Amino acid sequence: MRLSSLLFLVCFFTVAMSQCAAAAKARHFRWEVSNMFWSPDCEEKVVIGINGQFPGPTIRAKAGDTIVVHLKNGLHTEGVVIHWHGIRQIGTPWADGTASISQCAINPEETFTYRFVVDKPGTYFYHGHYGMQRAAGLYGSLIVDVADGDEEPFKYDGEINLLLSDWYHESIYTQMVGLSSNPFRWIGEPQSLLINGRGQFNCSLAAAHTPGAKQCAAAGNRHCAPVILPVLPNKTYRLRVASTTSLASLNLAVGNHKLTVVEADGNYVEPFAVDDIDIYSGDSYSVLLTTDQDTSANYWVSVGVRGRQPRTAPALAVLNYRPNRASRLPAAAPPATPAWDDFARSKAFTYRILGRAGVTPPPPATSDRRIELLNTQNRMGGGHVKWSINNVSMVLPATPYLGSLKMGLRSALPSAARPSDTFGRGYDVMRPPANPNTTVGDNVYVLAHNATVDVVLQNANALARNVSEVHPWHLHGHDFWVLGYGDGAFRGDAGDAAALNLRNPPLRNTAVIFPYGWTAIRFVADNPGVWAFHCHIEPHLHMGMGVIFAEAVDRVSELPKAAVSCGATATALMAGAGGHV
Amino acid sequence: MRLSSLLFLVCFFTVAMSQCAAAAKARHFRWEVSNMFWSPDCEEKVVIGINGQFPGPTIRAKAGDTIVVHLKNGLHTEGVVIHWHGIRQIGTPWADGTASISQCAINPEETFTYRFVVDKPGTYFYHGHYGMQRAAGLYGSLIVDVADGDEEPFKYDGEINLLLSDWYHESIYTQMVGLSSNPFRWIGEPQSLLINGRGQFNCSLAAAHTPGAKQCAAAGNRHCAPVILPVLPNKTYRLRVASTTSLASLNLAVGNHKLTVVEADGNYVEPFAVDDIDIYSGDSYSVLLTTDQDTSANYWVSVGVRGRQPRTAPALAVLNYRPNRASRLPAAAPPATPAWDDFARSKAFTYRILGRAGVTPPPPATSDRRIELLNTQNRMGGGHVKWSINNVSMVLPATPYLGSLKMGLRSALPSAARPSDTFGRGYDVMRPPANPNTTVGDNVYVLAHNATVDVVLQNANALARNVSEVHPWHLHGHDFWVLGYGDGAFRGDAGDAAALNLRNPPLRNTAVIFPYGWTAIRFVADNPGVWAFHCHIEPHLHMGMGVIFAEAVDRVSELPKAAVSCGATATALMAGAGGHV
Repeated sequence: MRLSSLLFLVCFFTVAMSQCAAAAKARHFRWEVSNMFWSPDCEEKVVIGINGQFPGPTIRAKAGDTIVVHLKNGLHTEGVVIHWHGIRQIGTPWADGTASISQCAINPEETFTYRFVVDKPGTYFYHGHYGMQRAAGLYGSLIVDVADGDEEPFKYDGEINLLLSDWYHESIYTQMVGLSSNPFRWIGEPQSLLINGRGQFNCSLAAAHTPGAKQCAAAGNRHCAPVILPVLPNKTYRLRVASTTSLASLNLAVGNHKLTVVEADGNYVEPFAVDDIDIYSGDSYSVLLTTDQDTSANYWVSVGVRGRQPRTAPALAVLNYRPNRASRLPAAAPPATPAWDDFARSKAFTYRILGRAGVTPPPPATSDRRIELLNTQNRMGGGHVKWSINNVSMVLPATPYLGSLKMGLRSALPSAARPSDTFGRGYDVMRPPANPNTTVGDNVYVLAHNATVDVVLQNANALARNVSEVHPWHLHGHDFWVLGYGDGAFRGDAGDAAALNLRNPPLRNTAVIFPYGWTAIRFVADNPGVWAFHCHIEPHLHMGMGVIFAEAVDRVSELPKAAVSCGATATALMAGAGGHV
Repeated sequence: MRLSSLLFLVCFFTVAMSQCAAAAKARHFRWEVSNMFWSPDCEEKVVIGINGQFPGPTIRAKAGDTIVVHLKNGLHTEGVVIHWHGIRQIGTPWADGTASISQCAINPEETFTYRFVVDKPGTYFYHGHYGMQRAAGLYGSLIVDVADGDEEPFKYDGEINLLLSDWYHESIYTQMVGLSSNPFRWIGEPQSLLINGRGQFNCSLAAAHTPGAKQCAAAGNRHCAPVILPVLPNKTYRLRVASTTSLASLNLAVGNHKLTVVEADGNYVEPFAVDDIDIYSGDSYSVLLTTDQDTSANYWVSVGVRGRQPRTAPALAVLNYRPNRASRLPAAAPPATPAWDDFARSKAFTYRILGRAGVTPPPPATSDRRIELLNTQNRMGGGHVKWSINNVSMVLPATPYLGSLKMGLRSALPSAARPSDTFGRGYDVMRPPANPNTTVGDNVYVLAHNATVDVVLQNANALARNVSEVHPWHLHGHDFWVLGYGDGAFRGDAGDAAALNLRNPPLRNTAVIFPYGWTAIRFVADNPGVWAFHCHIEPHLHMGMGVIFAEAVDRVSELPKAAVSCGATATALMAGAGGHV
């Protein structure tokens, strides 16, 4: 147990609260979410902003602090919630910010208070988790420093924060209609990639090196002026990189500079140096960069698309070696993004991410349960396209699970039929589904308290031949150990299960499954609540690619009324009142 | 009391229910609201549809029937309600379908049941009443025939239903952001006018008579194919015309044919013949048309813009004299819409609308209270543009009034300060406001039970010089008598009040105020509930142009839980439960 955790416990149980004031404090924020005009890539559209900003304000705290966000919904007709991605919400499952799962969406003009402890230092972010509001721009950074007196297991002189996203010119409303339509309409590729909310559309900052591109203005519009990252020579910087893309898998490189990976998803990893890093939606990393290059130049930071045939130009930012002028664009070509379909390279990067020796705890040696989740693309009702897990596409209920499960409301509960822990060995993951028909369902897995659970995510061929996509799966309420990856069908106890890495697997909250491959994770169900586990690609989640883990809900303490003041939970509680209105 | 009303009462109080089955029945509808792609004017956009239709299904009933609509919200993140425009909701104020006023918005995936009696025959419609959802296409017709055994006071051989609207290519989300922005952005004029949900954009069905226009296809796309209205020669048709426009004031004419006005807003009027009729948003009319023209031709139905400088082409439909082919477009030019700013003509039409002799009841001879509402355009916070009533721009609360007032929830209630019944005689209605600053407020007027209330709507100059706009004001929960209109400032008891028409004023639910003019109405506060009274122009309402009448709320019977399961009413009722969640 690290000092920060100890301090937190001490503060929690001691009556000598004065001692704790310095170590852990409550940080209060008053936020209002609203639609506003913004030009992330110099094309004006409507974004969801917070307090008039896009991306939303960065939260900066220390491990052990309590974050208190009074979130007012300033949208006109839409509900809203915010998920604190990577924060485990230990003891506060109602603050996880998932509509239909952990709380009732906040109605227009209402304020909901999120109050939770950031117990672990790391690079996190927050985002909308209702409909596709994340893709509309509802996101921001959440950075947790080590508690006073603690130290990171690496040194650096300064920090640079890079929140990456992608951006569509079509509204999310139109996107959602297309994804829900019969015939189905795919949203296509994003129009631009954004670094800290800024991108370039129909132009390049490095036009000289980009055939056919026109030069973007290097200044001007405050929404989309290039991101300039000032650094001093011969220093080491910690780049905090997180991706909240709707669709795109990304790769980040900095011209001429090596990157040393030291953190993934708020957990330390064994350091390793690379020329570039892959970042899937839902991932966060810290990488160290030393400014040891020619000090007379500035350098490109380049973010490009991997994993899907890119139709979106890389986003560029400028690493500005001071005292060079910021406006002096690098003369060199930006680093090229590796080929989108070089999955061998992607795997090589991902497989290098391991727990940090002496820091990352090892997983339990055995598990109590293994859940195998087959990801398939399917059709429903002839024309709807869905993603399914073990052939059931997830739909979310009107009444959030945390309330309905805790109150035992049968009518609002998931169907009595439990989803399957396995999909059967016969499925041919290399071909389109023999029978593409699917159904919708709850996909609620009930986990025993403190059970050690393995989940094997099994990828497969999509509806079209020779297509299998990348899916980054994100777990709420937990970190998990990534025990291993493999190609083709998982071979179970006889084969792959015996070869999993129990020695130094990394702890993460997001894990990718590669095309036609599998990924095995392990976690301990020690956090009572109801937790989503889903593909972090926004349209994939909208199309049903997820499951729900219901974990010892009877041990959850009293829910805030505001979290259950909708649907069947509200009706039941009001009926309990017995009063006449 | 008409026979239908008598029958209703008989059915209500008798135990011999079998007798009533034929006279009054419950008509059940299962509707689901959802966003969908549609091409109202052949340009594909997203509309809000019902059961996959746009406009929504037409409800047809007989006076005395009970309408039961099980409304499921199939939107992804937005609440929804439906207002039954013109239905007084006697005894069922919670079914009026006004978010923040009569009920909690229905959450996504939830179903709310609207159950109400259509007590009076007439031409009505329904529409969304949350944010600007009406402008997104959430509307349809509601037509109530006379009860069995009753007769209309005029004869006709057939009916034609014409639901008129206007249509913007920008989404309502973008529109709302602009209207709420600082600096303010006006939504501009609609791209097209629609007849029964169909219009022509960037083309004309009568291109030969429209300089510069290209000819629209006369068939093809099922969403936007021309509206064909088949008729037989030498018959009389009742045209039911209603307008649910967002902005446009309309004029309707049928080539070569006279129109005899017989009904306005579900009330009979003294018949009068005209060449064309003005229809403001929120109005409905029945006009009789006799097919007494050359039977070898078809004729244009033309709907054009009045009251604002038009930038939107007229919508055309074809009155198809059978057995002529429907595709044979009229050779003649469509009737020209009268000059937009010929307000003398507009007034002449409106002033001719009077109660039907021997049918329309006269108003009470005196009133108990007069409320004078000055409509001004204002600025707030420097850049926001608002419409204000007696210098307060209406904002709606998170918790609907009907619940919070009935439960006496102080924290959710309107401010203790009551809005003013008068604006003072000194205001110069002919000039921009000397001090354009305004504030926001509740604008809740508490009306004594059974009081006879006069309201004088006073128009004025807007922010720009020499601009005063048309505003059609719609009252919920009531019909009212329109006692008179005038130009300039209302002169009160000394002048105009004494000259009001108490002899044969028409009963209506919507009344226009002309530029720089005033309109006086009277109604009896005999319908306990909370009722909106507002300009029916969607962006004007969004900008605060309305007030609330709270009427004997203590006499409202028990509210359905679903109408109060949000905000402070839900919290209070759940707290009453005292149970732990």
